[in-house]
Amino acid sequence: MANKAYSGYINPKYIPKADLVAAYYLEPAKGVSFEEAAQAVASESSIGTWTNLSALSPKLKRELHARVFKINKKSKTALIAYPTALFERGNIPQLLSSIAGNVFGMKEVNNLRLLDINFPNRYIRSFKGPKFGIEGIRKIVKVKKRPLLGTIVKPKLGLNEKQHAKVAFQAWLGGCDIVKDDENLTSMRFNNFEKRVKETLRLRDKAEQITGERKVYMPNVTAPFSEMMKRAKYVKRQGSEYAMVDILSAGWSSLQDLRNADLGLILHAHRAGHAAFTRSSRHGISMLMIAKLCRLIGMDQLHVGAIVGKMHGGKKEVKAIGEEIEDRIIYKGKNHILSENWLNIKPMFAVCSGGLHPGKIPPLVKAMGNDIIIQLGGGIHGHPLGTRHGAIAARQALEATLKGIPLNYAAMKQFELALALRKWK
Amino acid sequence: MANKAYSGYINPKYIPKADLVAAYYLEPAKGVSFEEAAQAVASESSIGTWTNLSALSPKLKRELHARVFKINKKSKTALIAYPTALFERGNIPQLLSSIAGNVFGMKEVNNLRLLDINFPNRYIRSFKGPKFGIEGIRKIVKVKKRPLLGTIVKPKLGLNEKQHAKVAFQAWLGGCDIVKDDENLTSMRFNNFEKRVKETLRLRDKAEQITGERKVYMPNVTAPFSEMMKRAKYVKRQGSEYAMVDILSAGWSSLQDLRNADLGLILHAHRAGHAAFTRSSRHGISMLMIAKLCRLIGMDQLHVGAIVGKMHGGKKEVKAIGEEIEDRIIYKGKNHILSENWLNIKPMFAVCSGGLHPGKIPPLVKAMGNDIIIQLGGGIHGHPLGTRHGAIAARQALEATLKGIPLNYAAMKQFELALALRKWK
Repeated sequence: MANKAYSGYINPKYIPKADLVAAYYLEPAKGVSFEEAAQAVASESSIGTWTNLSALSPKLKRELHARVFKINKKSKTALIAYPTALFERGNIPQLLSSIAGNVFGMKEVNNLRLLDINFPNRYIRSFKGPKFGIEGIRKIVKVKKRPLLGTIVKPKLGLNEKQHAKVAFQAWLGGCDIVKDDENLTSMRFNNFEKRVKETLRLRDKAEQITGERKVYMPNVTAPFSEMMKRAKYVKRQGSEYAMVDILSAGWSSLQDLRNADLGLILHAHRAGHAAFTRSSRHGISMLMIAKLCRLIGMDQLHVGAIVGKMHGGKKEVKAIGEEIEDRIIYKGKNHILSENWLNIKPMFAVCSGGLHPGKIPPLVKAMGNDIIIQLGGGIHGHPLGTRHGAIAARQALEATLKGIPLNYAAMKQFELALALRKWK
Repeated sequence: MANKAYSGYINPKYIPKADLVAAYYLEPAKGVSFEEAAQAVASESSIGTWTNLSALSPKLKRELHARVFKINKKSKTALIAYPTALFERGNIPQLLSSIAGNVFGMKEVNNLRLLDINFPNRYIRSFKGPKFGIEGIRKIVKVKKRPLLGTIVKPKLGLNEKQHAKVAFQAWLGGCDIVKDDENLTSMRFNNFEKRVKETLRLRDKAEQITGERKVYMPNVTAPFSEMMKRAKYVKRQGSEYAMVDILSAGWSSLQDLRNADLGLILHAHRAGHAAFTRSSRHGISMLMIAKLCRLIGMDQLHVGAIVGKMHGGKKEVKAIGEEIEDRIIYKGKNHILSENWLNIKPMFAVCSGGLHPGKIPPLVKAMGNDIIIQLGGGIHGHPLGTRHGAIAARQALEATLKGIPLNYAAMKQFELALALRKWK
């Protein structure tokens, strides 16, 4: 099955300079060697096809072809270097159509996974990165060091505008900094977007007056582009600092423009649907890759997993993503196949969410540090005494964690926390 | 591991009426029954979460919750009915965040695949569907019955604007109806979008004069939304009838607006990247599902696979997709889990592409019928005598196929076809 059209794409002596480098996990098809399969991927994702072409001059091939420069058959990984001329600056869809496009369907591979990427400096400079980032968000929310505490209004669908706002209000009163819509709540027959935003922000202002703390609301603007922009602008006009968007359901083309429009909104990235292609360890695209794209185009915060929650996603993976979006320099080694120098691109907040409750806050903070947003949905609204007490319990758990006090000990004087710990073991 | 919060979502007696129905393949996690896992999916994709909520009233749950109404443990499939109130009309990202969102990452399932969907009439009516469809395209291209013949300019990247236009010109002269950009060619340092479009359309006009046939060009407008729209409008102004877009790299939010803008352009949907989540038969989203979404929002033609080509994708799957996008009524049975009544939504052209050459045209037409667009890239440009002769050979193969003449027989009098058959066996 060796295909000659795929030859000449391997060069173990090549040292990437200004190239974009991609790391793939690869399982060749039956009868195909690892080298052949890796070259088929390098060819299809750069300038080649399945048969030799008369119009492909040797000069052109030399200048623009990708190079498989490192192979590790034990870990089944291949590193491929791409000349940057293959990529249009500032255009993520074009990048994905190249290195995460046809290659996943090729008959030469049984499985293929895009694991990691290293962007060259020139490519990075064609993107804006986050407008606010961790520092900008902390300034707005007026929380200097601790993790931010958030909730998702639950039930995720079914409440009307007023009920929604009331649940948010109770969460803020109890101690949440942030309240957000759930990923499938947009503008519904029973809950109109504009009415919901207006009513929820009204109660946010009230919650700020009562608590003396800064409170924020993240309305979900996910929709076809023009409607999404209309909603984002409405949110801004109504005095919210935030918008949230389901990044993968919406897609990179509209996402980039939402950022590039510079509306002055902090952008919260929900990753609903990612596990359709990130979950298998042998095929698809890694969540790390998605996280890097989010930082590059300029989302301010991103769901990265909860380690201890209801969703798939282990500690090593979530920690690696956390580093990737929060550090200025990424060193290859234990958690990272490829390094990265993020230059002036700001760090994003990692959001830990999905099946969390107060009892899970200590191990989460221990694993991820203080620069995270901890979101509890059911873990607040499912509290035996309801949302407000649930939020109180979560805040108690967070404060105890920061002081190094075991939750069982703290719960002896805090009945809200005690009730939460009793319900969720 | 049974979770009580996920109970009450199963009802074998339920008969869907105006519901949206989704069919999932499902493998429960260890210690979880099939029924429990199916209910977890139904809950998370509608109104529930992992723990019981005080704010979720029995009335609300009754009105809005999804129902697992059919289970087949042998085929590991579950049918789930969703009240339409759960979905915002005309908003595909919202639909995906619901039924193809968090569910793929849940710990209750080891694998989960969204196989098929049935849209209720009211939901369908909130979308425009294709503006042109098969009939509209045939009218413009002036080809009444036969499959359309197309090519992708190759090498996919590396040619400058003039070289690109010349390759297209040769393909048209040889007999192609359609020439398109490749999926990773947008606006490059070595090949500027506007210059390429202008020059290629100039030679298209010339090819029309010489051949007396209608010829079309599909420039790739994939980019961040505003740039994409700018390019699409430029294409229209320059006198092209077509634009192509990488639907999955760009994403549904911008795709819907590209269609809704009604620019008067036929929209060609390239599916680069789909196999990251469609390839496994046990996880992700089926290509059939993606095809249905494309028809619903109004792409005019879509890559569906080539059956006999370089990409993964078997005959049964590709035929089922072809039926789904071209028939008015889809009957459940051999190829389809769920039925569909497409109402006034026009049929789309199925595009067969990826590793085809002249020798593969007869089995392809036999399997797919006449309402397809056959695209040969390498299978034209890789011809021993170059692009023009490659296009002649492809057209010869197509004409012979339509007349029922075996290619070997036709090749006795047609040396272009003979050379192609000799190179690609």
